Amino acid sequence: MADVILRNMNIKRILDGHPWVYRTEIDRIEGDYIPGDIVNVLTHKKEFIGKGYINLKSMISVRILTRDPEEEIGEEFFRRRIKRAWEYRKKVMEDLNSCRVVFGEGDFLPALIVDKFGDYLVIQTLSLGIDKYKETIVKLLVEILNPKGIFERNDVNVREIEGLPQQKGFLYGKFDPVQQFKENGIKFWVDMENGQKTGYFLDQKENRRAIQNYVKGAEVLDCFSHTGSFAVHALHYGAKRVEIVDISEEALEMAKKNVELNGYQQRAEFIRENAFDLLRRYDREKKKFDTVILDPPAFTKSKETVKDALRGYKEINLRALKIIREGGFLITCSCSQHIRPDMFLNTVKEAASDAKRTIRLVEQRTQAKDHPILLASEETQYLKCLILQVF
Amino acid sequence: MADVILRNMNIKRILDGHPWVYRTEIDRIEGDYIPGDIVNVLTHKKEFIGKGYINLKSMISVRILTRDPEEEIGEEFFRRRIKRAWEYRKKVMEDLNSCRVVFGEGDFLPALIVDKFGDYLVIQTLSLGIDKYKETIVKLLVEILNPKGIFERNDVNVREIEGLPQQKGFLYGKFDPVQQFKENGIKFWVDMENGQKTGYFLDQKENRRAIQNYVKGAEVLDCFSHTGSFAVHALHYGAKRVEIVDISEEALEMAKKNVELNGYQQRAEFIRENAFDLLRRYDREKKKFDTVILDPPAFTKSKETVKDALRGYKEINLRALKIIREGGFLITCSCSQHIRPDMFLNTVKEAASDAKRTIRLVEQRTQAKDHPILLASEETQYLKCLILQVF
Repeated sequence: MADVILRNMNIKRILDGHPWVYRTEIDRIEGDYIPGDIVNVLTHKKEFIGKGYINLKSMISVRILTRDPEEEIGEEFFRRRIKRAWEYRKKVMEDLNSCRVVFGEGDFLPALIVDKFGDYLVIQTLSLGIDKYKETIVKLLVEILNPKGIFERNDVNVREIEGLPQQKGFLYGKFDPVQQFKENGIKFWVDMENGQKTGYFLDQKENRRAIQNYVKGAEVLDCFSHTGSFAVHALHYGAKRVEIVDISEEALEMAKKNVELNGYQQRAEFIRENAFDLLRRYDREKKKFDTVILDPPAFTKSKETVKDALRGYKEINLRALKIIREGGFLITCSCSQHIRPDMFLNTVKEAASDAKRTIRLVEQRTQAKDHPILLASEETQYLKCLILQVF
Repeated sequence: MADVILRNMNIKRILDGHPWVYRTEIDRIEGDYIPGDIVNVLTHKKEFIGKGYINLKSMISVRILTRDPEEEIGEEFFRRRIKRAWEYRKKVMEDLNSCRVVFGEGDFLPALIVDKFGDYLVIQTLSLGIDKYKETIVKLLVEILNPKGIFERNDVNVREIEGLPQQKGFLYGKFDPVQQFKENGIKFWVDMENGQKTGYFLDQKENRRAIQNYVKGAEVLDCFSHTGSFAVHALHYGAKRVEIVDISEEALEMAKKNVELNGYQQRAEFIRENAFDLLRRYDREKKKFDTVILDPPAFTKSKETVKDALRGYKEINLRALKIIREGGFLITCSCSQHIRPDMFLNTVKEAASDAKRTIRLVEQRTQAKDHPILLASEETQYLKCLILQVF
């Protein structure tokens, strides 16, 4: 096994448990390896840190899998890790009909994503090192979770950085990739083949349930509704009326299907419009809502555009705050990983200041517990969800 | 009505909704008033900001009650505010057997605290301006909540800064001040007359319920147990065994009573010891637990001693982390208002680094929703509760 020896520099991040070794942190590599192989990671004094897989094509050149020098990386290792991940979900999640089964780095399985929708699993192997174990992982998922089928969603750009092809398709079983599942007891459609990412965003599961106290009997505006997951929850929890807004015809079609699946179409209205424009228009028209939900796509994917993203977040939150009735609620989210929780909170505070509204923080939330946050790795926390009362 | 005219300085904090005007922010006062009177607060350009009560004895010389120039401060005002506070609890709380009914600034009723324990209320009027309305407030609480009795717990130092006497006693009804109530469906005793503050700490209600996934079948160590509220929850949620630690004989007696009230004494062990010493000793003895709960009293009450407090938090968290089994949980709290949420999180991260344990953030929690956080007033957020999985 080759040894990756780090430079004589501050590597506290890695020692504290961050699983990534950047190319720039490597001094030299001793021994033979091919990309994707398991290597030892050592300090500049050759003290053992951990074992992981290597791929110099990526800036993240090694991802550490274990810190135990005795632990071998093979089928047994993946069995233990996947079992542990599944046991954790059984312990902390309210229900397991749908959940993220493996959350990459957060489950000590870097670059592996496994989502569960009813009896089906969707997996992503996003780096070369983990992709090599794809067959083993599929076998173990069948052994541990006994799904009816497993679908691969490796049609993502990040695979190309790793020198991997983009691909999607069946890995286990043959089935209709459009299936029903339940989230918080509510029925939804997932399109495992053509939906975004793994087909449905599970990370908001607990936040969607949390809205129940703030939508009952309320007139709700759901912006960036995508496939209508928040909107259907609002309808389920007794909203008087929900306006469902998205710019994408396709997303709105899926939202409509989800609303109809639950029989809530009489209280739902679908609006195809840019949310920024709509909020501005409603403010002009003095239209008011009891509760506004903002769950936009990431406004930034890099550190360089954080400032612009914050301007975007401030803008939509400001506009939303203006059209909320006295004592009503704003449920506002950000999934941009580079926007840290305090940055987002401050941006919303500034929006309230500009909108001349007083806001009370009722709940400060993050991603669901099946997306556990490795504190040594800031990247594993990305979702923010604030529930605010507006005066 | 007198006019309090502010200095020509940055008063964004006040304009954004912070209800406090410091003595140093006042330029001059025009008109007559006596301490406790309602005054207008104006900018240096004499623009209206709000109305509040004045007491120059306190550094916080005016506390703003309303920003509406038309709103009169009297019985109707307090009726509206108390009703609004109660309606909010009815909306957001799971059950109302016990809850904080009024959380001072967070409910736009500065310096007023009202806690509910079953059919009884405990109130605190912590400033001169609100104390003047005590009789009105009692009348309105009877009208709106129809309690069997109301107890006054104004035996607090802060009243003396305001020139008020310390006192406690019955304000409405005659009753035994030691009563049973329910928190999350679990029975507890409250001593309204001699318990700390209002007799019982309601702010952890939701955090206590949140521990249920992390204590089932577990060996639990509950440090700084005080009256055993976390411990009884752990027992209720199926802990195999709970060690209940507190330095105070009196607190431990109350904890014993609460454990017995629920019939859990067979799984509980009571230890009178300093938690720091005990954690150190258990580490030496290589004793291990599945779950450790740390809910210490505030380590600092001022900004000056924040550094020392952080050292204290790091120390107990480090020691606790060392005695948690692989995959076990740390539930760690801080109620020091001057320790901001990110400071506390970083301290726990540093403790993990020193203890050479890897930690996953499962839940990042704060005070219960009946202690709403006014975002313009940082002081209203004080409680931090982290649930971490330890590897």
